[in-house]
Amino acid sequence: MTEHDTRSGPGRWRSGAESKQRILQTARELFGQHGYGATTVRAIAAAAGVDPAMVFYFFKTKQGLFSAAIDMPGTVPPAIESIFTGGDLDTVGERIVRTLLENLDKSGRTPLVMLTRSAPSDAQSEALLREFIDREITDRLAAMLGTPDAALRAAMVNVQILGLTVARYIMRIEPIASASVDDLVDRFGPLVQYCLTGQPASS
Amino acid sequence: MTEHDTRSGPGRWRSGAESKQRILQTARELFGQHGYGATTVRAIAAAAGVDPAMVFYFFKTKQGLFSAAIDMPGTVPPAIESIFTGGDLDTVGERIVRTLLENLDKSGRTPLVMLTRSAPSDAQSEALLREFIDREITDRLAAMLGTPDAALRAAMVNVQILGLTVARYIMRIEPIASASVDDLVDRFGPLVQYCLTGQPASS
Repeated sequence: MTEHDTRSGPGRWRSGAESKQRILQTARELFGQHGYGATTVRAIAAAAGVDPAMVFYFFKTKQGLFSAAIDMPGTVPPAIESIFTGGDLDTVGERIVRTLLENLDKSGRTPLVMLTRSAPSDAQSEALLREFIDREITDRLAAMLGTPDAALRAAMVNVQILGLTVARYIMRIEPIASASVDDLVDRFGPLVQYCLTGQPASS
Repeated sequence: MTEHDTRSGPGRWRSGAESKQRILQTARELFGQHGYGATTVRAIAAAAGVDPAMVFYFFKTKQGLFSAAIDMPGTVPPAIESIFTGGDLDTVGERIVRTLLENLDKSGRTPLVMLTRSAPSDAQSEALLREFIDREITDRLAAMLGTPDAALRAAMVNVQILGLTVARYIMRIEPIASASVDDLVDRFGPLVQYCLTGQPASS
């Protein structure tokens, strides 16, 4: 490792740390220009002058690269994955609430805060994060349901996530703000489950 | 009426419009200094130099005076009242969702937006509005329930209100943003009802 080597220029030997930083910088630029969905790992690798395999070596997945590029904790993408792979549709409500709260409780940064408190200058990062959440959570929930009202049901889950985030971390409404994760999972798990699989009032 | 009379000073004859403005100005000052709960109509009337009966004549209730003072639409206090007086506990979820959406849909101002997007300089009006909502909605819902977990249940209703407001009016998440009030009442009425009267998962 030559992390303290400050020489630069074409054809120079690059350390792993330098390549990683270059990939991250390129990822920020391309995600910012084209959005999350329209930007491929292959395009980022090409623009950064590295092999795609190196991107996967450092960041494992496109989600992992994105989360590193926008400074989201690296634990978030595997946590999101566990919502979908950790059990049945019958218990997904509980997993969503637990995953959300465990990740935001331990993060000092509360990424979703950006969605509701961000300055106008952060509009681009807000749009990027929204697109990530839409694709990686909302659209996948809707696809998992496969019902005609799946988009509305997945959006209702968004309402729960937003409401809980604002109440616990921004407005600090009691007793939501100081309740244990277990107590909130106990209460909000069934609500989220109802959003996804419950019967509407008039049917 | 002498609305265009610009003379002032102690002992001058005051028009109704002048008295009303004076009451509003005094109300803003006292609510701002002491909060919503600790400020009485009697104290506002005394500080404004009018009889309390005149305050009730213009604003009907303390809630009405408060809503006028913070520039909330005058339809909001009676709408809140209808949540509590318009039917049984079994159907209160539906009434909360319908009242919220009908009032915010027709208001160009969406008062709750202040709660999540307000600038730091609006901290005082934010605190005042929160106190109003706590006392006039949350505390009354909790009192209506009377269960040991009533405060948590009422706060869960807050989560629904916040989430729905942010999703429909601030982030404009589809299909929540363009759904009809009836469709949202159909979906969110049972959720709010569950918050208040449903069984938690572990009991």
